[in-house]
Amino acid sequence: MALKKEIRDMARQAREASHLLANLSTSAKNSALKEMAEGLVQSAPKLQKANAIDLTAARKAGLSSAMIDRLTLTDGVIQEMAESLREVALLPDPVGQVSKMSKRPNGLLVGKMRIPLGVIGIIYESRPNVTSDAAGLCLKAGNAVILRGGSEAIHSNIAIAEVLMKTSMQHGIPPAAIQVIPTVSRRAVEEMLQMEEYLDLIIPRGGEDLIRFVVSHSRIPVIKHYKGVCHVFVDASADLAMAEAICFNAKVQRPGVCNAMETLLVHRNIAPKFLPLMAEKYLKAGVELRGCPETKRILPAIKAAGERDWGAEYLDLILAVRVVAGLDEAISHIIRYGSSHTDSIVTQDYINAQRFIQEVPSSTVLINASTRFSDGYQLGLGAEIGISTTKLHAFGPMGVEDLTTSKFIVYGSGQIRL
Amino acid sequence: MALKKEIRDMARQAREASHLLANLSTSAKNSALKEMAEGLVQSAPKLQKANAIDLTAARKAGLSSAMIDRLTLTDGVIQEMAESLREVALLPDPVGQVSKMSKRPNGLLVGKMRIPLGVIGIIYESRPNVTSDAAGLCLKAGNAVILRGGSEAIHSNIAIAEVLMKTSMQHGIPPAAIQVIPTVSRRAVEEMLQMEEYLDLIIPRGGEDLIRFVVSHSRIPVIKHYKGVCHVFVDASADLAMAEAICFNAKVQRPGVCNAMETLLVHRNIAPKFLPLMAEKYLKAGVELRGCPETKRILPAIKAAGERDWGAEYLDLILAVRVVAGLDEAISHIIRYGSSHTDSIVTQDYINAQRFIQEVPSSTVLINASTRFSDGYQLGLGAEIGISTTKLHAFGPMGVEDLTTSKFIVYGSGQIRL
Repeated sequence: MALKKEIRDMARQAREASHLLANLSTSAKNSALKEMAEGLVQSAPKLQKANAIDLTAARKAGLSSAMIDRLTLTDGVIQEMAESLREVALLPDPVGQVSKMSKRPNGLLVGKMRIPLGVIGIIYESRPNVTSDAAGLCLKAGNAVILRGGSEAIHSNIAIAEVLMKTSMQHGIPPAAIQVIPTVSRRAVEEMLQMEEYLDLIIPRGGEDLIRFVVSHSRIPVIKHYKGVCHVFVDASADLAMAEAICFNAKVQRPGVCNAMETLLVHRNIAPKFLPLMAEKYLKAGVELRGCPETKRILPAIKAAGERDWGAEYLDLILAVRVVAGLDEAISHIIRYGSSHTDSIVTQDYINAQRFIQEVPSSTVLINASTRFSDGYQLGLGAEIGISTTKLHAFGPMGVEDLTTSKFIVYGSGQIRL
Repeated sequence: MALKKEIRDMARQAREASHLLANLSTSAKNSALKEMAEGLVQSAPKLQKANAIDLTAARKAGLSSAMIDRLTLTDGVIQEMAESLREVALLPDPVGQVSKMSKRPNGLLVGKMRIPLGVIGIIYESRPNVTSDAAGLCLKAGNAVILRGGSEAIHSNIAIAEVLMKTSMQHGIPPAAIQVIPTVSRRAVEEMLQMEEYLDLIIPRGGEDLIRFVVSHSRIPVIKHYKGVCHVFVDASADLAMAEAICFNAKVQRPGVCNAMETLLVHRNIAPKFLPLMAEKYLKAGVELRGCPETKRILPAIKAAGERDWGAEYLDLILAVRVVAGLDEAISHIIRYGSSHTDSIVTQDYINAQRFIQEVPSSTVLINASTRFSDGYQLGLGAEIGISTTKLHAFGPMGVEDLTTSKFIVYGSGQIRL
C-alpha cells in the first residue's frame, strides 16, 4: 500500500505539473534545457559517484562487459547527454502550432492546435543516458515525465534526474516535471500502469519481454516496438553496385540495431549474378548467410534457412536470403514475415519503385537507400524518443511532435446549433 | 475453443482483406459505397424482417420504448443509412495523401504518406445504423472492419452487413472487409480484444460500463470516450444576449448527448445580472438548476449543488451552476472536474478569449459558440466515427482521416549510412 501511495502521489504531482508545463513559453523551456545541459556537465563528478555504486553492483551481479559498458557514465557520455539537450533546445516548439484553420458555412473559424499530451511514463532498460534524453524531449513538448529505468542504473538515474530538476527549477519548471521512480520493485511499474487518470502515454524501451509485460498490464495507451525485421528487396533492374553498397550497409554497418536488415530478398533474374558478388563481400565481413533452396543452388556453401529464419530478428552478423519471383512475391513475403518496421527496394524501375512505396505497409519504406536511415535524426525529426511499430498515434521514428496531440479550436461570434 | 477459433478466423481473414483494401482505388471504394447505399434501400423489406425478430425479442425482454425506438429500422432510418453512405463516398480519400516532403542534406527525399490502419474492431450498443455508418467510414479509409453490436440488434446487424458485403463485392471489395460477429456471447468480445496480431484499433461506442470493460480487457489500442462533462464560462464582459442564446442552446437543444453543457460557470461581476435572466429561460424549458452557495444567493429558489454535481454528466435537463471569481478559477474548475471533452467561453475580451483557447486542455475549445458544435460534421470532418477524449492518435471528433496512419516514405538514389 505504501508503494501504491508513493506512485500515486508522484503521478498526481506530475499531472498538476503538466498543467503549468503546457503553458510555459518556448524560451523558458529552451533556457531550462540549456541550463540542464550545463548542470549535467558541472555535476559530472557527482553523477559518476552515483554511477560507481551501480557499476560495483553490476560487477558483483556478473553483468556482461557489454552491459557494463552501456551502464558507464564516462565524461564523454555525460558530454553527449548535455549536447543532446542543447540540440533539443534548438528544435522548433510544436506546442501552440495551429493548422487546418478554415471557415465553416456558419462563420465559425475551426482549426487544430497542438498541445502537450500531459504526463508520459517511460520504462526503459540499463542505459542511463535515456534519463536525460527522454526528459529533454518530454519537456520540450510541454509534458511531465515519470521515468522508470533498469534496476542496474537506479543510482545513476536518480542522480541525473536530481540535477535536471534542480537546474530546470530556476526557469519556472515545476519540480514534479521530471521524476524518477526511486524503487527497483517491478510492482512499482505495475502500479504506474494502472494510473490512467494521471498518465496519458507509456513508452517502453527495451527487450521484447519488457514490452510484452507493459502491454499486457497497462490500462494507459502504450506506444511500442517489439522488433525490427527489416528487408531489402533487390529487384531485377537494380544497379548492381548500388545494390551491393546498400545491402552491405544495411546488414554490416551496425548489425545490433533494429533498423539493420535481417532478410535479403533477391529477384530471380538477377540472383545468379548478384548473389555470388554479394556473398563474397558478406563473407569477408563475417556475415553468416542462411539461404532458401534457390539461394543454396547459387551459393551451395551456405547454410539452409529454415522456416524460423524468415521473421527472425538476429541483431547480429547473420542474414536470411531468399530468391523471389518478383515484386509481388517480395511484398507478400514482407507482409507475412516483416514487423512493419522498415523495408527497402533497390530498383531502376519506376513502376516497381512506386508500387513498393505504396503497397508495403511498414512504418518506413525506402527506395534505393539503406534501411539504416530509419531513425528520427536521419529522417529530419531532430531527435528521437523511440520507434513505433504500432500504427496508432505515431508510426515509425517518433520526434518531439509525436509527444503532442491536437485539440479543435473554434472561434465563434455567437453561433448556436440549429 | 470453437468460439475462439471462429473469432480468430474472422480476424485473420479481415487482416488478409485489409491488404487488398489498402490498395483499392478511390473510385472503386466510392462505387462500392454508392452500391451499398442502393443495396440497403432495395433490401429494406429483408432488413425489416430481420429487425422484426429483434423487436419481438426486445418487447418480450421488456426493453424501454426509447430503446425499442432506437432499435427500429423504419423506412426513414434505412434511407438515412443509405444517405450517410453516399455522403461518405463524396468525402476526400485520405489514403495516399503525402505531406511534409522535404530533402535531407544527403539528397534523400523524405515525406509521410497516409495509409489505412488495417483492421478496426467496433463494439457498440443497440442502434443498428452504426453497422452501416461504421462500415462505410472504415471502407473509405481502406480498412477492414469487425463489428460487434448489441445483442438486441443481432439479427438486424447481420442482415445489414450481409447486404453491404454482397453489394460491395461487385466492386472488388473482399467479403471479409465487413464482418459482424454472429454471436451474442460476451466471450466473443473478450477473444476479439486479444487478437493484437490481427487488429489495429478498437473503438467502443456506448455506455461507460462497456467502455471500461473494453479498456481493461484489450491488448489492442483503444480509442475511447468515457463521458462529456462540458462547460460554458460566461465571462464578465460577455454580451448578455449572446450568452443567453449559447447557454440555452448548449443545455436545451439536445440534452441527452455528450456535447451538451452540464455545468455553467459565471463570472462574479456579471452573475447578479445574468443569472436571473438565464434562470427564467431555463425554468420555462423545464431545466432543473443546482447552484453553488453564491448562485443560491442570487437564485434562492433553486436546489443546492453538492460536490457530486461538479463533474456529473446528467444527459438530462439538469444543470450545475457555479459563480467564479474570474478566468483562472473557471479554467481550474474545468481542469479539475471536466472530462477533456468540450468547453466554451462567452466573452468580448480578447485576452481572455485567447487565454481560454490556449489553456483549456479539452478536445474542443470554443469562443462564443455553443458546445453542441463539437461534432465531426459540424467541425467540417464530413462524418464522424466517434469522439475521442483519449489524447493519443485522435482527440475530439474523429473523421475518416483518423482511421488512417502515416508511414515515412523515402526516395533515395543509392544513399548509405556513414
